[in-house]
Amino acid sequence: MRAEVVAVGTELLLGDIINTNAAMIARALADAGVDCRRQVVVGDNPERIAAAITEGLDRADAVILTGGLGPTQDDVTREAIATALGRPLRRSSEIEQSLREQFGSLGRPMPEMNVRQADVPEGARVIDRTFGTAPGLIVEHEGRVVYAIPGVPSEMRDMLARAVIPDLLARAGGDVVIRSRIVRVAGVGESSVATSLAPIWDSLGDGVTMAFLAAGGEVRVRLTAKAQSEGDVDERLGAAESAVRETLGRAVVGSGDVTLESVVAEMLLARGWTLGCAESVTGGLLSSRLVSVPGASRWFCGAVVAYGSEVKEAVLGVANPVLAENGPVSAPVALAMAEGARARLACDVAVAVTGVAGPQEQGRPVGTVVIAVVGPAGSIVREIRVPGDRSMIRTLATTAALNLVRLSLLEEES
Amino acid sequence: MRAEVVAVGTELLLGDIINTNAAMIARALADAGVDCRRQVVVGDNPERIAAAITEGLDRADAVILTGGLGPTQDDVTREAIATALGRPLRRSSEIEQSLREQFGSLGRPMPEMNVRQADVPEGARVIDRTFGTAPGLIVEHEGRVVYAIPGVPSEMRDMLARAVIPDLLARAGGDVVIRSRIVRVAGVGESSVATSLAPIWDSLGDGVTMAFLAAGGEVRVRLTAKAQSEGDVDERLGAAESAVRETLGRAVVGSGDVTLESVVAEMLLARGWTLGCAESVTGGLLSSRLVSVPGASRWFCGAVVAYGSEVKEAVLGVANPVLAENGPVSAPVALAMAEGARARLACDVAVAVTGVAGPQEQGRPVGTVVIAVVGPAGSIVREIRVPGDRSMIRTLATTAALNLVRLSLLEEES
Repeated sequence: MRAEVVAVGTELLLGDIINTNAAMIARALADAGVDCRRQVVVGDNPERIAAAITEGLDRADAVILTGGLGPTQDDVTREAIATALGRPLRRSSEIEQSLREQFGSLGRPMPEMNVRQADVPEGARVIDRTFGTAPGLIVEHEGRVVYAIPGVPSEMRDMLARAVIPDLLARAGGDVVIRSRIVRVAGVGESSVATSLAPIWDSLGDGVTMAFLAAGGEVRVRLTAKAQSEGDVDERLGAAESAVRETLGRAVVGSGDVTLESVVAEMLLARGWTLGCAESVTGGLLSSRLVSVPGASRWFCGAVVAYGSEVKEAVLGVANPVLAENGPVSAPVALAMAEGARARLACDVAVAVTGVAGPQEQGRPVGTVVIAVVGPAGSIVREIRVPGDRSMIRTLATTAALNLVRLSLLEEES
Repeated sequence: MRAEVVAVGTELLLGDIINTNAAMIARALADAGVDCRRQVVVGDNPERIAAAITEGLDRADAVILTGGLGPTQDDVTREAIATALGRPLRRSSEIEQSLREQFGSLGRPMPEMNVRQADVPEGARVIDRTFGTAPGLIVEHEGRVVYAIPGVPSEMRDMLARAVIPDLLARAGGDVVIRSRIVRVAGVGESSVATSLAPIWDSLGDGVTMAFLAAGGEVRVRLTAKAQSEGDVDERLGAAESAVRETLGRAVVGSGDVTLESVVAEMLLARGWTLGCAESVTGGLLSSRLVSVPGASRWFCGAVVAYGSEVKEAVLGVANPVLAENGPVSAPVALAMAEGARARLACDVAVAVTGVAGPQEQGRPVGTVVIAVVGPAGSIVREIRVPGDRSMIRTLATTAALNLVRLSLLEEES
């Protein structure tokens, strides 16, 4: 079973909104084991929408349209389906009545414009509305199928889960199951991960593939398996994940929905410890990633963003001679910042990050980052060099700091 | 001039990531007056990428590819361009050498895999890298053009602005000039802005349009003008901007490339003042937005992220009875936090943000945010209520805090 997604909306082509709907539908299709090889965006133009439908049906078993089902003149997805499939639009008195009743129950008359939402291509089945006013459509055509669901994300998600995916699965008839799993890796570059994993390609077995995606200082290894049953797929993914973990060892952060920060949170909670930060180069980014984990107040104390040397001294208690002798981007200063944060914030583990984000060098080259972690079992300091502009350097420094906290907690375990 | 966007990446088809690149490119094209009628997403498959290129060149003058230029085996955009245009790939010894030098300067050998990034389709021009390792490509073909830029957003943005848009504009020639200008507005909702500006529509004149986009607690008013010459366009945009400013007054943050934080930075620099923060609900997000301004160290001292009440007391010196009587999300606590930050961080102006991001209420409903600004001329406290989930509440609280700093500085001016 193969499907394509066509998102309709001039606002997408102008970049006024981001196409989160396509990602949402893509994930639902991947989870259902439906192969999707193309997503398309077209504007509110009936000929171009119709062309996208026709091309999609040439390549795939199903086309899922989202958007263009509203009541205004620029909502033309209904007309486009009628054109593409060569069928007239018929006004459904049943939908018209239900629309009038819906407005009536809100105590206002239906704008006459809305009656367009009762027009359906001949032979279409209607997907009932839970929210909103736009009904969805399922139109079978010469052994293939076109779905049309609204562009409003809440309405789209509802009809996708309730009608489109079940209908697709019923059509697929359970021949092949496809599933993916993400294994997250930190502290190693994309090409090193790919090189390390190259030898295990052959052992992954039939129907299992690997892909790599680097972002923000982490690498995501995506394992995809295809098999006859859910059980088979899970078994293949499990074996592949084990092989990846065995090869990459502690560089593996976790698999599935975890993030570096959620893994650090779990490790801290398991030990009953709290964490605090002293941030220079990252300027608050590390803290904001930590508090993005729900329930962060159980293990996150707070942070001191010590951007200037005065704050490092006055608030964190970094001694002036240490700063003067070593410069602000140095192992002794990072250590003193972490120790200061641990004392001031009264936390069990403290992490400090100092570095040079540029554009000016500060005694050290742009991209130099020094991280220190101080905890119950001792301290670790690490100096790294990261590429990029200010924003990327800060992102990579944040990821490296989170990873050093993770590694230090693993260390205390062993 | 008409262009299409092809985003390459199986991770997009699986919904692992959201296609923000397409929106970014779309906006840049719209701002440059280049018509874009279709966006396509295809996976890491050379035949399907090649098919998307061929189809795109049938419909448009230019195809902009993003993604698939990395060093690993699944990065096949180079090969796909070669296939689509029927040209061989040639290894560029110049790019190879510069890649080796780049790795050398980071003190590590280049993985042999990376040499693939030196392969370019015959006759292509290379877009030099600012970051990363992937060079971009400009390939002219039978009067049309294919651009290939990386999928990593920072690298993509850089090459788009520096090479792709200027090249497209040069090709478009100068029959009609279309330019857009963004006027940023804070502290007022999208529909209020649209309602306030409704009366000026008619006075904007021929060929000038307005569009509204709300994001992250700000509203962007996009003014677009079309005329025969640059001078005419600039004059129309200038007149339209004046009309908008006159109507919206102090809600206007600025126009063009400014941000709330860059405007605050300029105002502080003009007064020779420094800024510090006390953050509770925003957890470091406010600081990280401030330090994103280049040269922030000239006016930004630092911050205390006081997530727990202990830190509010111990580091910021918020008195226990003030906390106990009013609760952590209250005007007296916000004021005490700002005063504490002003004293501890030794800054001229301090801003404090406290609030409830949820999911649990904390004596006050989820979405309650209290902001205090304390400066040489006195203090302001403001309580607001913002919608959304944890992440949106923190974003909106950050924007509101920056805007209150801006308004307090404007106040001192008048």
